[in-house]
Amino acid sequence: MDYFKFELLHISKKSRARVGRIHTPHGVIDTPNFVAVGTNATLKALDSKTVNDIGLQLMFCNTYHLILQPGVATVAQAGGLHKFMNRTMPIITDSGGFQVFSLAAGQVSDELKSRGTKKYEGSVLKTNEDGVLFRSYRDGQKILLTPESSIAAQKALGADIIIPFDELLPNNVDPSALERSLHRTHRWEKRSLDAHLANPNNQAMYAVVHGGTDQRLRGMSTDFLTKLDFDGFALGGSFGKNHQEMFDLLDFTVPRLPADKPNHLLGIGDLKSVEEVIKRGIDTMDSSHPTRCARHGLVFTKNGPLKILKPENKTNFYSLDKTCACFTCQNFTAAYIHHLFKASEMTGYTLATIHNLHFMVQLMAEYRQKILNDEI
Amino acid sequence: MDYFKFELLHISKKSRARVGRIHTPHGVIDTPNFVAVGTNATLKALDSKTVNDIGLQLMFCNTYHLILQPGVATVAQAGGLHKFMNRTMPIITDSGGFQVFSLAAGQVSDELKSRGTKKYEGSVLKTNEDGVLFRSYRDGQKILLTPESSIAAQKALGADIIIPFDELLPNNVDPSALERSLHRTHRWEKRSLDAHLANPNNQAMYAVVHGGTDQRLRGMSTDFLTKLDFDGFALGGSFGKNHQEMFDLLDFTVPRLPADKPNHLLGIGDLKSVEEVIKRGIDTMDSSHPTRCARHGLVFTKNGPLKILKPENKTNFYSLDKTCACFTCQNFTAAYIHHLFKASEMTGYTLATIHNLHFMVQLMAEYRQKILNDEI
Repeated sequence: MDYFKFELLHISKKSRARVGRIHTPHGVIDTPNFVAVGTNATLKALDSKTVNDIGLQLMFCNTYHLILQPGVATVAQAGGLHKFMNRTMPIITDSGGFQVFSLAAGQVSDELKSRGTKKYEGSVLKTNEDGVLFRSYRDGQKILLTPESSIAAQKALGADIIIPFDELLPNNVDPSALERSLHRTHRWEKRSLDAHLANPNNQAMYAVVHGGTDQRLRGMSTDFLTKLDFDGFALGGSFGKNHQEMFDLLDFTVPRLPADKPNHLLGIGDLKSVEEVIKRGIDTMDSSHPTRCARHGLVFTKNGPLKILKPENKTNFYSLDKTCACFTCQNFTAAYIHHLFKASEMTGYTLATIHNLHFMVQLMAEYRQKILNDEI
Repeated sequence: MDYFKFELLHISKKSRARVGRIHTPHGVIDTPNFVAVGTNATLKALDSKTVNDIGLQLMFCNTYHLILQPGVATVAQAGGLHKFMNRTMPIITDSGGFQVFSLAAGQVSDELKSRGTKKYEGSVLKTNEDGVLFRSYRDGQKILLTPESSIAAQKALGADIIIPFDELLPNNVDPSALERSLHRTHRWEKRSLDAHLANPNNQAMYAVVHGGTDQRLRGMSTDFLTKLDFDGFALGGSFGKNHQEMFDLLDFTVPRLPADKPNHLLGIGDLKSVEEVIKRGIDTMDSSHPTRCARHGLVFTKNGPLKILKPENKTNFYSLDKTCACFTCQNFTAAYIHHLFKASEMTGYTLATIHNLHFMVQLMAEYRQKILNDEI
């Protein structure tokens, strides 16, 4: 397989942090790196060209949403997700499982619910060994998602990295239910892998390690999945109730993954977590947090977060961050962006999103340098 | 006055259409030209840099909205509107009168009402010879707008072209009320001009010709205003119930304006009107129509308007307009923009706005060439 390769360049002398390079058909992802979420085949308030200019090397798109709108057949007809959205750099898609189960359970953020387009109460109608039958929140139609249909959808979308279909249980189920679910997830992941390997399509597939907060189950999951021919490993499911529980879980789990394959932490990208998960050997992590913060007027700076709507920014005639080289900071003041937010102008959301995304991309470049210098 | 100059380059042999050049402190406006509306110191869904790249030579900002948010003192502190919004090309502001009166009467479009930020019922509390007392729709405070305070606000904003304070009556008032209002407007315009000339500030002032649909009153208005030292003439007030009434009114009014000064048609820019008003000698015209259409998914093309949400665009894998060189058409398909609108993604509004604005800018360049060729 020459279309996907992980190069491990350096492991810090101070932690398990590592610097690497993931080679994909759409170019390189330097690791560790942040993966922004473009649920509906766009980052909210940005176009693909702007995202490329910022240098975001990996974008996460949600298969569940793309199945419902515009439908994978349309994306396939466009020549795949890259051509459809005119993205030249790598894309990762998930299986749809997370959204199906979590939308039904009401566990995900408003962002992933796409409330603006929600017309029906989305719900899981039936789950069995085959897969899950659910109702579309857009038009009420019934859709069956199975390992095979999820992979078929992800083949049609054509992302560089795809994810096997898994089951997500509500939080706080009893341990035996969690263990039964883990085994079903493993069977579904194996079926997903078989479907993928029957038609690799220049795509790589990362397993999803489950087991919730139970180390025994996490160990069973890594034991099972690392024996299969996955190209990388994503960490999914519940990471516990607080940051420390997640860090402990990573301390336990990451060393059980093969060092020569890339890993990914699903759904984590808040600033408080980033450095700690990198120190525990995480290569990539996705989150809608930085872009959602931007649209809510929370801007990231070297000196900490800046709330753009604070009265003091009315006359803050400096850029959001004096050290920042992003398009927004090079062209506009905090006072102007404050005004755009006060006037509910979309331009404000765009400018703040450009800034926060640039911040994350630069932050990750700095972490890579620090690891190369054995500073973290 | 060397900071403002109008060059008349050519008058068509086929109509009163003319090609000219307005020189301002922020560069040239080629005429005839379209003036886009950026009510709150931004075109909706675009940043100033993008607007510059599209080549929009004159932008219209609304003094009324800027008085309420962020306040003219803040814009002045920023160094004026150009610096505040980082616009390097010319800007025109209105007096605030139109919005004060029309918001009170419920006559303007939702766009100008800025519904998203409306907290109070805006209303006119009192009108007398001094000016108009109104209540802010943002915070309920009472604000007195007079010829002198409007001009002071427009001095602080620092647009290249400013407009005297005028009175706008509801439609269908009786003729004697209209005539009384016209005389008051003339007195207010004279006071505005005096206030302006006391501190020219490198700005030009266009008179506003009133008189509604009554040719006698329009004639009185041009007689009165052309004797004063205005730099150009805007046509305001009611233009009648249909296109033909407006065209007839222009046939009557435009020849009564001095040929060596630029004129502007307030609030007109729909495609049906553009060519006809140009033929009647209009130099510039402003309208929020093209950008508002874009946000509602109505895209302008050489082959007529395209409704992006039509089902046939789901698989329209061509650009919005095959002959278009805009950023949107160079990078994205109609199918992708259709998807963005279906998914209620802001990016769709931005891409459609870029296209329609580019369309208007190009359309005007084509009209100038046609006039130079005596084709229209």
